[in-house]
Amino acid sequence: MTLNRRGASTCVFSAMPAIISAASVVGPREGKGPLGPLFDLVCKDTLCGEMSWEKAETKMLRQATDLAQAKAGIEDAHVDFFLAGDLLNQIISSSFTARDKDIPFLGLYGACSTMGEAIALGSFLIHGGFARNVLAASSSHHDTAERQYRYPTEFGYQRVPPSQWTVTAAAAVVLSSQGYGPKVEAVTVGRVTDYGISDANDMGSAMAPAFADTIWRHLSDMGRAPEDYDAIFSGDLGRVGSKAALYLLKKRGIDLEGVHQDTGLMIYDMEPEICSGASGCGCVASVFAAKIYPEVRSGKLKRVLLVPTGALHSPTTCQQAESIPSVAHAVSLVYPEWGEGGS
Amino acid sequence: MTLNRRGASTCVFSAMPAIISAASVVGPREGKGPLGPLFDLVCKDTLCGEMSWEKAETKMLRQATDLAQAKAGIEDAHVDFFLAGDLLNQIISSSFTARDKDIPFLGLYGACSTMGEAIALGSFLIHGGFARNVLAASSSHHDTAERQYRYPTEFGYQRVPPSQWTVTAAAAVVLSSQGYGPKVEAVTVGRVTDYGISDANDMGSAMAPAFADTIWRHLSDMGRAPEDYDAIFSGDLGRVGSKAALYLLKKRGIDLEGVHQDTGLMIYDMEPEICSGASGCGCVASVFAAKIYPEVRSGKLKRVLLVPTGALHSPTTCQQAESIPSVAHAVSLVYPEWGEGGS
Repeated sequence: MTLNRRGASTCVFSAMPAIISAASVVGPREGKGPLGPLFDLVCKDTLCGEMSWEKAETKMLRQATDLAQAKAGIEDAHVDFFLAGDLLNQIISSSFTARDKDIPFLGLYGACSTMGEAIALGSFLIHGGFARNVLAASSSHHDTAERQYRYPTEFGYQRVPPSQWTVTAAAAVVLSSQGYGPKVEAVTVGRVTDYGISDANDMGSAMAPAFADTIWRHLSDMGRAPEDYDAIFSGDLGRVGSKAALYLLKKRGIDLEGVHQDTGLMIYDMEPEICSGASGCGCVASVFAAKIYPEVRSGKLKRVLLVPTGALHSPTTCQQAESIPSVAHAVSLVYPEWGEGGS
Repeated sequence: MTLNRRGASTCVFSAMPAIISAASVVGPREGKGPLGPLFDLVCKDTLCGEMSWEKAETKMLRQATDLAQAKAGIEDAHVDFFLAGDLLNQIISSSFTARDKDIPFLGLYGACSTMGEAIALGSFLIHGGFARNVLAASSSHHDTAERQYRYPTEFGYQRVPPSQWTVTAAAAVVLSSQGYGPKVEAVTVGRVTDYGISDANDMGSAMAPAFADTIWRHLSDMGRAPEDYDAIFSGDLGRVGSKAALYLLKKRGIDLEGVHQDTGLMIYDMEPEICSGASGCGCVASVFAAKIYPEVRSGKLKRVLLVPTGALHSPTTCQQAESIPSVAHAVSLVYPEWGEGGS
């Protein structure tokens, strides 16, 4: 059997799966931000007409998946797998969305790296001949995440400068063996990294080493330099984590200055309350669906590296004085027409 | 590209991945049960020398993965992916085990179906040419799960007859494109099913429809009858759920009587406290590693269907008066020598 791998740990696709549609549904605050007009749906309030924030998050994820399927013109019967995950305990937003779909379901958990994990696995399933179409999705909700990981939002606790603001957003994409859309060229699945950061209010610093490790392995495996990409997106390191990540990479001789952008710094006007930037599974997923995806689809960007990063802690591990392990997965995407004959 | 699929939703492997090793680590109660002598390691107490039950669960999972790798003679550098999940919030047992391994990590959540999801995805990755070796693992711990999902165990609440006893156990397997071991012949990934059961103390009844749906789809897709398998293992429906599942299948004309066994009824002497049987990610995983795996490896069983089942609720969804969605994944395994030329 031929191995579809390059270097120590990067998977490459001889027949590149295409992302044929993408959709995003966001909350009111995200709708007022600089990417506001690009999202498919903006909820009027954070409850979206539901009785609880958790139910609202599920509704947003369902809307995003329905929209992605509608844009691709693909009904449940023609979707072979639904891959999804979110931040809530027992990934309930994903499981309850899956309940309403007649599609085999595989639940994932990679914290804010989940969309990267879902696109990676979807690409493996399609390239391996196990699926024609895969629905991949992820979500987060500011109020459900805050009360689960930290404090109820009503409590109004004082945020610290490295804090990140969990985004209220859901996004979904349809991957396919056929059809037009950005092609998945290569994937580098991340190793779990832990530099001993134990401050749950500074996830950017905790995730920076995982991002640096994955970038380093991806570029080494592919024999590439940062300039080979029109843009390298982390999601989401915030201001503090981005600075740490770029420093760690510079020490390894890799300079991302000019090519690196963080999706956590793209979704909001950076008011003081946002502190270091945005975070949450839904941030990188919705910024990808609304902003990055159309730019690769149209050829404005010819090759991008999407690197969702996840902090794999829980309130229990923090209480038990553990540090925060992190992971980052890199997905290389190319302009479809360029990708056909691409290197 | 050829599709490696049969029927509406079953994936088949022309070159079957092999499970070349399996290992299990259990708690003291599991060690005293009927399968006690078959487990690789039995912990003296539920803390395993750690300061908390959560740390103990991580230690057991690390031991199980180390053992599975040692049995296979495969170090981290030759394992392409580590796939794992558990019951704890943010799958911390898996993430913290992954932290100690130098292997790309993909976190999964499928409640007690997680080992089925991990073996399925591992098989896809190997058959697709993305990996030579994959480590798949899962764990649960009675005391960590009880205090997270229900009450602290010190509270000593009254259990009801359909209750299931969460197992303290971790298990791991190594899947490989080469080597000797039971072959993964086919996989049917489950759809999320919900018949409206909302009693978190009766997960067997909640999961029975998911099990029945997956069995029905697997047998239809493969054009097979229950008798084509030496045994069909659910994991874990317990007494109550098994009865419901067999009834649901009988109504569809499928009789599992005589061929069906539930791993939740195999691991303990059925004392009154155990109520309907055992459950937890670690139950089906450890019973598979200790009992089923060697019997397929030696040819005592020629073809088995392993069907881990998961209840996808959370304490929050129960408090918000939601019912319990469930999922079940079927993995068909064959005796290696028989599998080479198998149908």
